Amino acid sequence: MADRPDRRIVILAEGAFQTDSAKTARGVLRYGPDPVVAVIDSTLAGRRVGEFMPPDARYAAVPIVATLDEALALPKPPNELLIGIAPAGGKLPEAWRGTIVRALRAGLDVVGGLHVFLGDDPEFAAEAAASGASIVDLRRPPDRFEIASGRRHLPGKRVILTVGTDCALGKMSVALELTDAARRQGLQPVFVPTGQTGMMIAGWGVTVDRVAADFLQGTAEWLVEQAEERGDWIIVEGQGSLDHPAYSSVTMGLLHGATPHGMVMVHMPGREQHEGWDAWPHPLKPLPEFIRVHEAVAGLVAPSRVVAVALNTSLYADEVEAHRVIDQIGAATGLPADDPFRFGGDGLFAAIRAALEG
Amino acid sequence: MADRPDRRIVILAEGAFQTDSAKTARGVLRYGPDPVVAVIDSTLAGRRVGEFMPPDARYAAVPIVATLDEALALPKPPNELLIGIAPAGGKLPEAWRGTIVRALRAGLDVVGGLHVFLGDDPEFAAEAAASGASIVDLRRPPDRFEIASGRRHLPGKRVILTVGTDCALGKMSVALELTDAARRQGLQPVFVPTGQTGMMIAGWGVTVDRVAADFLQGTAEWLVEQAEERGDWIIVEGQGSLDHPAYSSVTMGLLHGATPHGMVMVHMPGREQHEGWDAWPHPLKPLPEFIRVHEAVAGLVAPSRVVAVALNTSLYADEVEAHRVIDQIGAATGLPADDPFRFGGDGLFAAIRAALEG
Repeated sequence: MADRPDRRIVILAEGAFQTDSAKTARGVLRYGPDPVVAVIDSTLAGRRVGEFMPPDARYAAVPIVATLDEALALPKPPNELLIGIAPAGGKLPEAWRGTIVRALRAGLDVVGGLHVFLGDDPEFAAEAAASGASIVDLRRPPDRFEIASGRRHLPGKRVILTVGTDCALGKMSVALELTDAARRQGLQPVFVPTGQTGMMIAGWGVTVDRVAADFLQGTAEWLVEQAEERGDWIIVEGQGSLDHPAYSSVTMGLLHGATPHGMVMVHMPGREQHEGWDAWPHPLKPLPEFIRVHEAVAGLVAPSRVVAVALNTSLYADEVEAHRVIDQIGAATGLPADDPFRFGGDGLFAAIRAALEG
Repeated sequence: MADRPDRRIVILAEGAFQTDSAKTARGVLRYGPDPVVAVIDSTLAGRRVGEFMPPDARYAAVPIVATLDEALALPKPPNELLIGIAPAGGKLPEAWRGTIVRALRAGLDVVGGLHVFLGDDPEFAAEAAASGASIVDLRRPPDRFEIASGRRHLPGKRVILTVGTDCALGKMSVALELTDAARRQGLQPVFVPTGQTGMMIAGWGVTVDRVAADFLQGTAEWLVEQAEERGDWIIVEGQGSLDHPAYSSVTMGLLHGATPHGMVMVHMPGREQHEGWDAWPHPLKPLPEFIRVHEAVAGLVAPSRVVAVALNTSLYADEVEAHRVIDQIGAATGLPADDPFRFGGDGLFAAIRAALEG
């Protein structure tokens, strides 16, 4: 993370703010601790963030601008450019180079979570050196080469992992909402970031999909160990899904490395296929079956059970419809179910707490 | 791989040639195409390799020496030092530094597969530059950032993956023995190396446990794609095990990235715990149950079945006993079973072929 005491962020989300790949942008807007002064997306220039996200005074009025220069002309200009898009494979779109160079030249720190490290790019590095700006590559793995040790959790700690039927449906948001709910209930929760957006929000963590596969479980174990030193309810951000053709190994590493006491299954009713895999011949698995798979796979290393279902009901605009779907899935799975992003996490966390303390 | 036309290898296995961690040393001795002139292990100095490995004229007389200098004094001195130990976590034991420096100073290429890259070490790099020797770090991942695409196999190709109940029990050896058997049966097999030892033997491949987790499936898919261009029977070296507390994500990545038509389950009768995890509370799973787990987990992405069991019967010195155990496990699993390393792979491969062509 850039270490400025007074961060003012402009988020680069060119051409994508309305799409799933801008989940980093939306996550930072909704959950980040520092003010966002503008979002760059020329296709939506002149609009406001609030038109595209759930109502929230923190970001409703944030302007969407066409260029970095427009953001720099604001009364309180940004001092940090944050890459707000997470393209599959984490590459740098060629079209962004100019914006990044201009930002560094203007002295803005640049924070990104791509697989391609901006700080290793000679042009970017030279611009940063000239202006004194910092480049922060959140996906750069820690210089740590430790396989998992089979560590056990400390007494009295409870570890929860969000798992899901796909990518990009809310595993991070659910973890954050449950963390907030636990705090409101007087507990000491710790959110464990495992991806770039979570790191931007919480200021620590590891983007585990960039860690060498041999150290994936070791890294998850280490993150949980650090969290147990800071609190009692450890809520780990999940990644991918166990049946994802590209990312299942990341999911597996978190599951076997974090060895959660309980899992929260995140699902988006109405989504039938893995996002971006429309030609893939396998539809998403039915939830009850997929829940059993998770418990069986977790149990290969340490017993765990799915204790709740968190639903992303964004495909059901009508609230009555959304509640009907939640009730239906709750009945089908026999588990507490809710949409904590939309309706708040208090009820779901209380049910999870009862399951894990009982 | 070092590119010399006339490689003469000395293998560093100091203090470990008799242990499981010298599996790289033994794999190269048994399957490698180039002559090994000596093994360094001061604790066994004066002995011969043949005293510690199954009978084979290729390596029986290779001397074990105490120091590199002794190897350099041989009539045909080595021109390559190969790091023959695979320590957990892939670190460089401090005690090896001196030997590596002496080797580079004497102009020997140094080939290793540690997680720590020898070529990035300033002292080693300077010595190599001074003498003109090469440093080859087989574990350095390819500069390739591609997630899996869901590629399908070409028509007529058959893909086999060796899986297993643990690390270090013979998944690579089984793959190599089956490859040899397929070749003897007039087919065009391709062995796909996924670890450092396999790469040393076959001269290509990727040590997948070092690849960033996001690209693990993509790398396995790419290796299989390359193999399908060269042959019809693709035999992929497996890694780890699905229930291993440190390595299950690597296993998962190979399984979902290679999408094998058939799996061969490798097991070591008599081994009750994961190697080196004696304090781990979970014994290895019963084979029939573990076979079902593999088919269920594979099927999350692409259907596959376990078509044979390959047993490492090295804990049963008596051949009659070994055959009794093989028969017992064949009956318990209902699958063709044999020890291809000890008794040859022809029979087992024929059974696998029948299962996958049928």
